[in-house]
Amino acid sequence: MSLSPRCVLVTTFPFGEVDRAPFDLLKAEGIEVRTNPFGRRLREEELVEIVPGCTAMIAGTEPITARVLRAATDLAVIARVGIGLDSVDLLEARRRNVRVAYTPDAPSAAVAELTIGLMIDALRGVTAADRVIRRRRWQRTLGRRLSESTVGVIGVGRIGKRVIAHLSGGFPGVRVLANDLAPDMEFGAARGVAWVDKSTIYREAEVITLHIPLTLDTKHLIGNAELATMRSDAILINVSRGGIVDEAALAEALTGARLGGAGVDVFETEPYTGPLAEVESCVLTCHMGSMSVDCRRRMEREATMEIVRFFRDEPMRAAVPEAEYALAASR
Amino acid sequence: MSLSPRCVLVTTFPFGEVDRAPFDLLKAEGIEVRTNPFGRRLREEELVEIVPGCTAMIAGTEPITARVLRAATDLAVIARVGIGLDSVDLLEARRRNVRVAYTPDAPSAAVAELTIGLMIDALRGVTAADRVIRRRRWQRTLGRRLSESTVGVIGVGRIGKRVIAHLSGGFPGVRVLANDLAPDMEFGAARGVAWVDKSTIYREAEVITLHIPLTLDTKHLIGNAELATMRSDAILINVSRGGIVDEAALAEALTGARLGGAGVDVFETEPYTGPLAEVESCVLTCHMGSMSVDCRRRMEREATMEIVRFFRDEPMRAAVPEAEYALAASR
Repeated sequence: MSLSPRCVLVTTFPFGEVDRAPFDLLKAEGIEVRTNPFGRRLREEELVEIVPGCTAMIAGTEPITARVLRAATDLAVIARVGIGLDSVDLLEARRRNVRVAYTPDAPSAAVAELTIGLMIDALRGVTAADRVIRRRRWQRTLGRRLSESTVGVIGVGRIGKRVIAHLSGGFPGVRVLANDLAPDMEFGAARGVAWVDKSTIYREAEVITLHIPLTLDTKHLIGNAELATMRSDAILINVSRGGIVDEAALAEALTGARLGGAGVDVFETEPYTGPLAEVESCVLTCHMGSMSVDCRRRMEREATMEIVRFFRDEPMRAAVPEAEYALAASR
Repeated sequence: MSLSPRCVLVTTFPFGEVDRAPFDLLKAEGIEVRTNPFGRRLREEELVEIVPGCTAMIAGTEPITARVLRAATDLAVIARVGIGLDSVDLLEARRRNVRVAYTPDAPSAAVAELTIGLMIDALRGVTAADRVIRRRRWQRTLGRRLSESTVGVIGVGRIGKRVIAHLSGGFPGVRVLANDLAPDMEFGAARGVAWVDKSTIYREAEVITLHIPLTLDTKHLIGNAELATMRSDAILINVSRGGIVDEAALAEALTGARLGGAGVDVFETEPYTGPLAEVESCVLTCHMGSMSVDCRRRMEREATMEIVRFFRDEPMRAAVPEAEYALAASR
């Protein structure tokens, strides 16, 4: 594929569907657009095929590894549609003078709302009941109320804070336990949060939700040992990143009724075809945390504008911060 | 079945499972208990079989018709576990001097939370995505955020008010349109509610939720004509009573993509086996609105205590109000 230097390769999918503005913005600047030819999340070898000659890239969560970056000899800028950076080899990008921007705040609101939805779904057995009715059966399941629950939030950054705001504002009576590497004490005090260590959350919380990045430190943070300390009626929600939860261990805990239920939006390998897809007490969604019209629109526009600014020789607005490179270097 | 005069027939199911206290309360008073022998919602002819000789009854939503009441020659009191009275022939009960109590507030909190859960589920396609993954497929659906939506609430009583409180407290940005026969202006002003007529809700709301009783006036309130005036992306939630929505019309509107989605907990005939069970954009639950541990506990205790007070010759706490008899008489 031959690309003009004034061309952006859009590897994320979908793109420009909810809102054509990104295409219009790029066209107005005379920037050529090449979209993802597969219509789904790309694999490493597919990226290696299509990146040569590409100067700028609007990326999703596909693996932008050292191998991909080595193949992308003309690449100067990547704008990630989203916040997670586990898919990008930041150190290799820096070595090759590839600048990386992201949209750190845009997805938060949609992820936080999905989290609340998955909590109520798992607590009340909504999706499980839907399955029962479609099998022409009827089973009135007794559930629990979010307002009556102790919710443990691991990671109180942009998304964790929004989840807590939904809980404390909308579900009075809820008890929030929270854990963060750098607790925002002011926020916690305003929202009635109790800061505790992770083991307290595992032991006490009826609902546990993860809002942390995937790093070497958080890889399989929730495995057999942690699941074993949780209440047998606990609900685990993961809308952050696959790989933070050991999926096989989770499937076993749920199947053995050593855990009450789960809501899982993200998986180590996507599309997901693993054992959780057989577990009745698990609600599964297709990495849809950021997939609301308003957030998707904002993410795509923000990422697109980084590319527009690049071609205009203007500074980046949301360059990936140094802390992310330091984190990558510490691995 | 021969029953002692100091015996209560429990027709609702389940009962005493979440909390044995109702059995203990009755036992302490020397009241004998006969539970539902079928382990499911009873049909009219089954009730006719088992009610003779029964003095007191703790009832669910099974049909306590004139025929059932005529068979229940010794019946003096019914305590409904729940709020809906469409299942009880109140006028026939009064003619036969059968006093009726209910638990009007106990289920509200659980119903309101399920409503919020169904809204997020339908807006984001949670249950539909779960189905996709279980078919070993992957489809990232673009949804909408509740906080960005216009929500129409029809019926702003105990439950409707709680739904609005969840929305305005937990999902800032939401726009609430509301309709009620007797609007509580003070509540509406405090929660930023716009009082409108039903046709405005049908026309403008992206999410429409019903919190009204089933009466002759509300039977098929939402039928073909009303569905036709709704937005094609509207989500309809019914956790109130089956029969308020014309299920066949709803299934057709959803199948034809003339409506965006639905969350349905209640059906004209339960267990439900109708066409909605084939519709991908519909989330179905098994009449589980009140089915949270805390609400079920409170409902069962309150209903049980009405029976205890009856045998103690003490006054009822929550007798069905005169307005309900007037409503029944106006049919």
